[in-house]
Amino acid sequence: MKRPFERPLHGGNLVWAASLANCSPSAILDFSASINPLGPPESAIATLQTHLTTLKAYPDPQYHQLRSALSEFHGLPADWILPGNGAAELLTWACRDLSALDFTALLTPAFNDYWRALKAFSARVLPCSLQDFEQQTADFELAFQNFEPPVLSRAGLLLNNPHNPTGILFSKEALLSQLARWALVVVDEAFMDFLLPEQQQSVIDQIQKHPNLVVLRSLTKFYSLPGLRLGYAIAHPDRLQRWQQWRDPWSVNTLAAAVGEVVVQDNEFQQQTWNWLSKAKPLLYQGLAQLPGLTPFPGAANFLLVQSDHSVTELQSALLKHHQILIRDCLSFPELGDRYFRVAVRSEPENHRLLTGLAEILPL
Amino acid sequence: MKRPFERPLHGGNLVWAASLANCSPSAILDFSASINPLGPPESAIATLQTHLTTLKAYPDPQYHQLRSALSEFHGLPADWILPGNGAAELLTWACRDLSALDFTALLTPAFNDYWRALKAFSARVLPCSLQDFEQQTADFELAFQNFEPPVLSRAGLLLNNPHNPTGILFSKEALLSQLARWALVVVDEAFMDFLLPEQQQSVIDQIQKHPNLVVLRSLTKFYSLPGLRLGYAIAHPDRLQRWQQWRDPWSVNTLAAAVGEVVVQDNEFQQQTWNWLSKAKPLLYQGLAQLPGLTPFPGAANFLLVQSDHSVTELQSALLKHHQILIRDCLSFPELGDRYFRVAVRSEPENHRLLTGLAEILPL
Repeated sequence: MKRPFERPLHGGNLVWAASLANCSPSAILDFSASINPLGPPESAIATLQTHLTTLKAYPDPQYHQLRSALSEFHGLPADWILPGNGAAELLTWACRDLSALDFTALLTPAFNDYWRALKAFSARVLPCSLQDFEQQTADFELAFQNFEPPVLSRAGLLLNNPHNPTGILFSKEALLSQLARWALVVVDEAFMDFLLPEQQQSVIDQIQKHPNLVVLRSLTKFYSLPGLRLGYAIAHPDRLQRWQQWRDPWSVNTLAAAVGEVVVQDNEFQQQTWNWLSKAKPLLYQGLAQLPGLTPFPGAANFLLVQSDHSVTELQSALLKHHQILIRDCLSFPELGDRYFRVAVRSEPENHRLLTGLAEILPL
Repeated sequence: MKRPFERPLHGGNLVWAASLANCSPSAILDFSASINPLGPPESAIATLQTHLTTLKAYPDPQYHQLRSALSEFHGLPADWILPGNGAAELLTWACRDLSALDFTALLTPAFNDYWRALKAFSARVLPCSLQDFEQQTADFELAFQNFEPPVLSRAGLLLNNPHNPTGILFSKEALLSQLARWALVVVDEAFMDFLLPEQQQSVIDQIQKHPNLVVLRSLTKFYSLPGLRLGYAIAHPDRLQRWQQWRDPWSVNTLAAAVGEVVVQDNEFQQQTWNWLSKAKPLLYQGLAQLPGLTPFPGAANFLLVQSDHSVTELQSALLKHHQILIRDCLSFPELGDRYFRVAVRSEPENHRLLTGLAEILPL
């Protein structure tokens, strides 16, 4: 068993951070996990409270009510939607499908859990480097330039949109143009809902035309409930039924299912989130750009990738010790290493605390 | 997607039952899921309420605090314990290990989810019939009499103790005597905690001597929180670390982890449960035995298997329509079919309602 002080692979590991900061996990100001600071919405809290008594019963294995709410939200038949114990659980099964192919192209730098899930089923992984991401001109066609079309017909593609950690947004058209070339394309849209509706580039509304497309969505980043675990996959019903036979019948807990039904209808919270992010992100970006030795990249989602002239390991450690602030190092992305970090956009006063903390420390 | 009125494979499907009974799911008196009627304990409810605010953070991927509580409870090092999203999630990974062997012997009649999990990884399954279970003299040595020892050295064994649905309890000695013969033995002890401590036949205290032994435990049957999803596996740390790499890092939700820590220390609730069951089970057994055409079998756990001279499908339907009472048919156990049903032991007034309902209906 790992000790608490081992460096975590993912953001949001407050137990580890608290051991370095010498405080309680709840005292950490966490910029490492990209969670909406406005939530959880009141509608979610109220639902949790009224549903505590329903824990005495098993969840409905078909999750009819949750599926029906998601079906209405996306304008899709309910059997094209499968709820999961976080998007991460569904990623496991998506990667099992990918592992049956000749190889899987993985856009790098890649979220560490993609490597975990692909390795779980011994998938052959071909890392495809997202070049020029620092100029935000990265083109994923470029990443695949060495592949001939016949090769791709037995290959899979796994990526996220917006891309994590760069924040790059691929256009819907660019993604759709790939679909004819690959045996299976898995698009993780975990952060798509943070974009203003008119800026979103989701491929969900095209899913019924493409049995080789899988979209993964999270409901716990936007609604600030990562501890509750809730995500869903959108894909052809045959594929989702196969996944259901692989996993146990009650994968989503009753509270998560009840909350999911309610929050997708909470238009007020959605609008508040978009209002906050439109204002807070540019301010954080500008604040970071003014600090010595830091270069933030504009990102489409609710986080910013920052290039640093200083060692990020040292910066992270100093921020924890002196300010109880946790930033996400990028050591789990080997292409980035010790000169990049990622920060979530939080409330304006919290972003200000981060900027003040960094200003006190820099230059190291 | 299945319709609500399709017959479920498992107990506890209240959505399906309510559609037949023409009432709300919460109005069903559920004897089909074997859940402790005394719970959830107050300690669990209080923990849920104080932890709603912690849902904003990701769970600790190593679940240090929960593992530490379970470690103390069982007197085992923490790295021999892996929490899961219900025992059912861990069954999936146990069956992946079993599928790597030449074949898996499965004691039948077998819990339907064992078939699901074994099929998920294309395990070769050899059903081994538990003969004479009606006389409670079933001997699992008998079930394996056709196997020569060299064959078993590349084979796995999957069973539950107490056995579901017969309620038969295998002795610890009988199980331990099997361990030298099989490559891997998976014992699902989902109902073991319902037995009085001096009657329990758990093999957990022998686990450190046997790297080829896996024990699965549930925390949501005894503590009446099946909607929350919480179980754990006990096995060699190397095995559990491999499983952790297969699944996502945050499989157990924050509320389940917090509740798990607390309930294993709730000695008062444990004692109340043992007191209730010692009294309620013999009364329910006697009541069932007095009804025309029904023969209950004595069972070690908190449920009773009943042989019926009448069609159980008809009996189940009549109980739902006239009394909103749900019993567990045994159609998902092909060896049992339409002449057996299973009922949970519930509170004495509820057991009385079941007996009265049956008495009004029988003989059909």
